Amino acid sequence: MYIHETQIRVRYGETDKMGYLYYGNYAHYYEVARVEAIRNLGTSYKEMEETGIMLPVLELKSKFVKPAFYDELLTIKTYIPQMPTTRILFDYEITNPKEELINIGSTVLVFYDINKRKPMHAPDYVLESLQKYF
Amino acid sequence: MYIHETQIRVRYGETDKMGYLYYGNYAHYYEVARVEAIRNLGTSYKEMEETGIMLPVLELKSKFVKPAFYDELLTIKTYIPQMPTTRILFDYEITNPKEELINIGSTVLVFYDINKRKPMHAPDYVLESLQKYF
Amino acid sequence: MYIHETQIRVRYGETDKMGYLYYGNYAHYYEVARVEAIRNLGTSYKEMEETGIMLPVLELKSKFVKPAFYDELLTIKTYIPQMPTTRILFDYEITNPKEELINIGSTVLVFYDINKRKPMHAPDYVLESLQKYF
Amino acid sequence: MYIHETQIRVRYGETDKMGYLYYGNYAHYYEVARVEAIRNLGTSYKEMEETGIMLPVLELKSKFVKPAFYDELLTIKTYIPQMPTTRILFDYEITNPKEELINIGSTVLVFYDINKRKPMHAPDYVLESLQKYF
Repeated sequence: MYIHETQIRVRYGETDKMGYLYYGNYAHYYEVARVEAIRNLGTSYKEMEETGIMLPVLELKSKFVKPAFYDELLTIKTYIPQMPTTRILFDYEITNPKEELINIGSTVLVFYDINKRKPMHAPDYVLESLQKYF
Repeated sequence: MYIHETQIRVRYGETDKMGYLYYGNYAHYYEVARVEAIRNLGTSYKEMEETGIMLPVLELKSKFVKPAFYDELLTIKTYIPQMPTTRILFDYEITNPKEELINIGSTVLVFYDINKRKPMHAPDYVLESLQKYF
Repeated sequence: MYIHETQIRVRYGETDKMGYLYYGNYAHYYEVARVEAIRNLGTSYKEMEETGIMLPVLELKSKFVKPAFYDELLTIKTYIPQMPTTRILFDYEITNPKEELINIGSTVLVFYDINKRKPMHAPDYVLESLQKYF
Repeated sequence: MYIHETQIRVRYGETDKMGYLYYGNYAHYYEVARVEAIRNLGTSYKEMEETGIMLPVLELKSKFVKPAFYDELLTIKTYIPQMPTTRILFDYEITNPKEELINIGSTVLVFYDINKRKPMHAPDYVLESLQKYF
């Protein structure tokens, strides 16, 4: 399993009138977390797109355990729990500065060939960069 | 079961560089859809908050079947599949102008007493407004 | 001068912890307002992009007179104050349900030829659709 | 004059179908930049709110010189050009990784007493923290 950690500070514009981080904004945080997890493997999602591969999201799940508040520096643990196929799974655990678990999430993404306009298998360099974790 | 339909047009700022409605923005659409579903029952979420009840989201699930594109007028069917308890469930089905199903979602929300700072049972006027659908 | 009116309801996720419509979200409202103003002229911004013309924003100005609140149905008056050249100006006035003026804004956009990658003059069909207002 | 620098990486969900950072999202970046500028002075906007002072935005101006793209690490220079009174001005200059100037912005905010519900003079600790820069 591959695990990576990143931190995001809650912006004012991301809160809602309840005073909480709006539930729709967690998807942005997952995106940042998985992009940084990929970057840490030595590649980048931006380069992946430039070589004709995109990664649209097929599924999103989220459990909101406790609220997150303005200006909190959240820690997001990103897991790639299994070797990717045509799909890649990411799991997320978000903790607040008190180290309380506040959110659990998961996303399923598909490797998609932009030119052929169809799903494709995970490219070799992605598989190779993940090899040692499995 | 209670079913309600609402329409939302995809804004430019809600698309991403893939040209799709960004996956994080569906949560906003679900919110609009359930708020309009509640309004159609004769009450409003705004008034609910003003009487000391809020409805934070506990769970979010989404399946992205097909992309949504800029300027498309999407139709969101909102379902309340069972009588609320301390929790209320909403299911969503989104179709595009070609009447293709593009997204399936669900959210679980909890009735929360703002003053007592704890979960509470669905208020009577909510239950009464839903009675005839079950 | 061309004037057009459109309405937008404030979404929960667009408010911030102050309880106000977040100041960054007015730009989305201006976008919706000018897109609807263009649609009312018989063309659409989407089609414009499909024929190779895009309209990036060069300047944005906003005065926040009074706050907007959750669930308010705002009215946005959009003005095209002069015939477009390579640039097109839009002015905006937003009023709340009490008919109070809450925001004044303006944007300058440039007609941009996607293929030639340079600014261009406003296309004839845009000029023709505006002729009778000037 | 007080000057502070902060960096923000462009998120996928912040781009639009043009492939650019959406023009409405610069307001979020300005907010992050001024919050970090304030934090660097030894106080925090969060604490300010907790002591009953909020800082709603009165005016926003933005010039979009060049587009910003996905995954670019932008540098935002924030200026407080003069000692605050009841109002505080912030100017912003954003540069991309090629060190090209891509955006110039400014905001005017007002110190607002939450309990008295009216504008107030900048609190002493803010003025003191800025003294040495003027």
